[in-house]
Amino acid sequence: MSILSELQLKLSPSIRFMTKSFIFTKRRLKFFSTTSRPFCSKNGSAASDSGGEWPRRVVSGLQPTGELHVGNYFGALRRCVQLQEQGDDVMLFIADLHALTVRQDGQLLQERVLDMAALALAAGLDPERSVLFVQSAVPRHAELCWLLACLATNARLAHLPQYKEKSATMKEVPIGLMLYPVLQAADILVYRGTHVPVGVDQLQHLQVASQLVRTFRHRYGPAFPTPRPLLPDDGSDRIKSLRDPSKKMSKSEPDPKSRILLTDSDETISLKIRKAVTDFTPEVTYEPERRPGVSNLVTLHCLAADKLPEEAVEEAAGLSTAQYKRVVAGALCDALAPLRARAAALRARPATLRHVLRHGAARARLRADEVYDHVASRAGLTHAHPHPSQHDKIPL
Amino acid sequence: MSILSELQLKLSPSIRFMTKSFIFTKRRLKFFSTTSRPFCSKNGSAASDSGGEWPRRVVSGLQPTGELHVGNYFGALRRCVQLQEQGDDVMLFIADLHALTVRQDGQLLQERVLDMAALALAAGLDPERSVLFVQSAVPRHAELCWLLACLATNARLAHLPQYKEKSATMKEVPIGLMLYPVLQAADILVYRGTHVPVGVDQLQHLQVASQLVRTFRHRYGPAFPTPRPLLPDDGSDRIKSLRDPSKKMSKSEPDPKSRILLTDSDETISLKIRKAVTDFTPEVTYEPERRPGVSNLVTLHCLAADKLPEEAVEEAAGLSTAQYKRVVAGALCDALAPLRARAAALRARPATLRHVLRHGAARARLRADEVYDHVASRAGLTHAHPHPSQHDKIPL
Repeated sequence: MSILSELQLKLSPSIRFMTKSFIFTKRRLKFFSTTSRPFCSKNGSAASDSGGEWPRRVVSGLQPTGELHVGNYFGALRRCVQLQEQGDDVMLFIADLHALTVRQDGQLLQERVLDMAALALAAGLDPERSVLFVQSAVPRHAELCWLLACLATNARLAHLPQYKEKSATMKEVPIGLMLYPVLQAADILVYRGTHVPVGVDQLQHLQVASQLVRTFRHRYGPAFPTPRPLLPDDGSDRIKSLRDPSKKMSKSEPDPKSRILLTDSDETISLKIRKAVTDFTPEVTYEPERRPGVSNLVTLHCLAADKLPEEAVEEAAGLSTAQYKRVVAGALCDALAPLRARAAALRARPATLRHVLRHGAARARLRADEVYDHVASRAGLTHAHPHPSQHDKIPL
Repeated sequence: MSILSELQLKLSPSIRFMTKSFIFTKRRLKFFSTTSRPFCSKNGSAASDSGGEWPRRVVSGLQPTGELHVGNYFGALRRCVQLQEQGDDVMLFIADLHALTVRQDGQLLQERVLDMAALALAAGLDPERSVLFVQSAVPRHAELCWLLACLATNARLAHLPQYKEKSATMKEVPIGLMLYPVLQAADILVYRGTHVPVGVDQLQHLQVASQLVRTFRHRYGPAFPTPRPLLPDDGSDRIKSLRDPSKKMSKSEPDPKSRILLTDSDETISLKIRKAVTDFTPEVTYEPERRPGVSNLVTLHCLAADKLPEEAVEEAAGLSTAQYKRVVAGALCDALAPLRARAAALRARPATLRHVLRHGAARARLRADEVYDHVASRAGLTHAHPHPSQHDKIPL
């Protein structure tokens, strides 16, 4: 029996209804992705080239730290679902190993992993077509990380802006923080990922992965495709803080009104949008450089209601910023309320979520074993063949 | 059927004879270790304390790089066999992951791993009583390494003398080199090793492991014993270069006459000892500070013939240094020739060696899984339970 049908059998009628509505959402997304507005047109469609001989495969990770805001949702989670609906082979992992680079409460981390799984499923990730799993359940990530750590230079890693920024705020910097981009490279390469949905700020980490692909090839022969970025063209990687639109929306900004969380109620969403910093021009226009506050509202509106900026601005003709804020809040509530409800219903079934994650991990391990076996034997590690996944009796 | 009996069945009569002689060697060692000269009296016997609640377990690693010299043999390999004969629970791994921190030829590395396995068995390591395996065959080493990397500070690692020394000679320093002591800590802690046979020069790396035990306990609660060093008192960690007795014998010294390899023929051993740098006093005395060259010969004589320095010096009474060199060479040849022959015979059976290593890896994986499961769940990685080893049908 398939995981999805098991999932539906196990769910109560009310949740089965939600699963239907989530299938509706997927149809909407499918429609969206096949309209004249391909969101990753720069990067080729699922059927197009994949950087040479390697089949196209999308790999993406979600950090299970703190609560997700709309930027994470539109920029990462929903993009993965869109790629899945395009027909892509999507692997989405919950990055609990990465989370350990900052101090974590063990209990809380476990809860957040399940939160994340519930959100991914609620957003429309299909555990049959895509592979949803927890990073630490696949030992090959850490094993390939060591192998790549022997090829990655200290100098390069120490000069990455994200490392410099994060380490500057710490009294004692763990080597895990410097190793972070190497584990990221392992996350992608262990599945021979060809495409990675990222924001502009993560391009440098992807360059580390590309450099490691070259170094490995130079030393041991070809083993990995060079992963390419899938940059969004819907502005989802440029959602700004509601309190200071010169900065990105971020979970680390102290003021909680600066971001909209996926767990926020309709009232909280409306309040945060009402309090959003704009400017003294009442008219609604889309000029990200000159008017970042209002333009950020337009971006959120477009993402929530599946519009182009010119459509949103046209619709807002004659509205004051204050009136437009009500439209934006309404669109966000319409987009997020069903997601929130589906996530909450799934979150109430931790055993089902764990089952889905175990299934995903078994599939991911098979794929990772195949790549790691090849890579490890090129590097001289012939005895690295326990092949544990072959013993997992889960149907794939 | 036990591995050892399989091993004997598979071996030809000539090798079965060698296996007998190697059992004789073990008896000799056992006798040696129960005489009035306990080689690790400072550190307690197998039955004594183990640093609290944790059962005593010895963990040691062998680097499969280059050829072993007598210092490696007496200081590491033979010590493990002695501990095994004392009744210790010994885990000996061939450190292929560590080997990758310097550039390796993949093919050659695979060969050297088998060389090392043959030597360990030839030296008397019993794959039934002890656990002999290849590091990369147990994924938990790399997984725990990541977890510990999130606790180990950059500053501490960058200031370790071995790192500073090695990195100074490299144009591009891989982060793997800085991470080296963290992987070493993982190697020990993943088996809850309580005792580690080391030389004085490795004490600082063991301190990194102890620090990580404390940091982990502080953050997540007790999980590991603090590993203690087993320092030799037979001088085996202080064997000097034959060309410059002010330095340690080392595989990196350019002059091959500075060291005696385990693969050297009797003729080569005799030649190297004849050419060994001493001083202009013909008499044989044991004064390591004042007369390092002659004293180094006494040390080698004692290690090879199982003597105390005063016994060796008494025996040498009336001999010139030149005459004594013949005695030392003879003792070394007597000790190393049978080892060499046994190792060569075993090395000619790679399938048998791989079988032994797979058996060891299956046992090691079971032990590592138990520890890692506990540790990972304390850190919040609940989904890290693939339990691959439970599917391995090898009797333990």
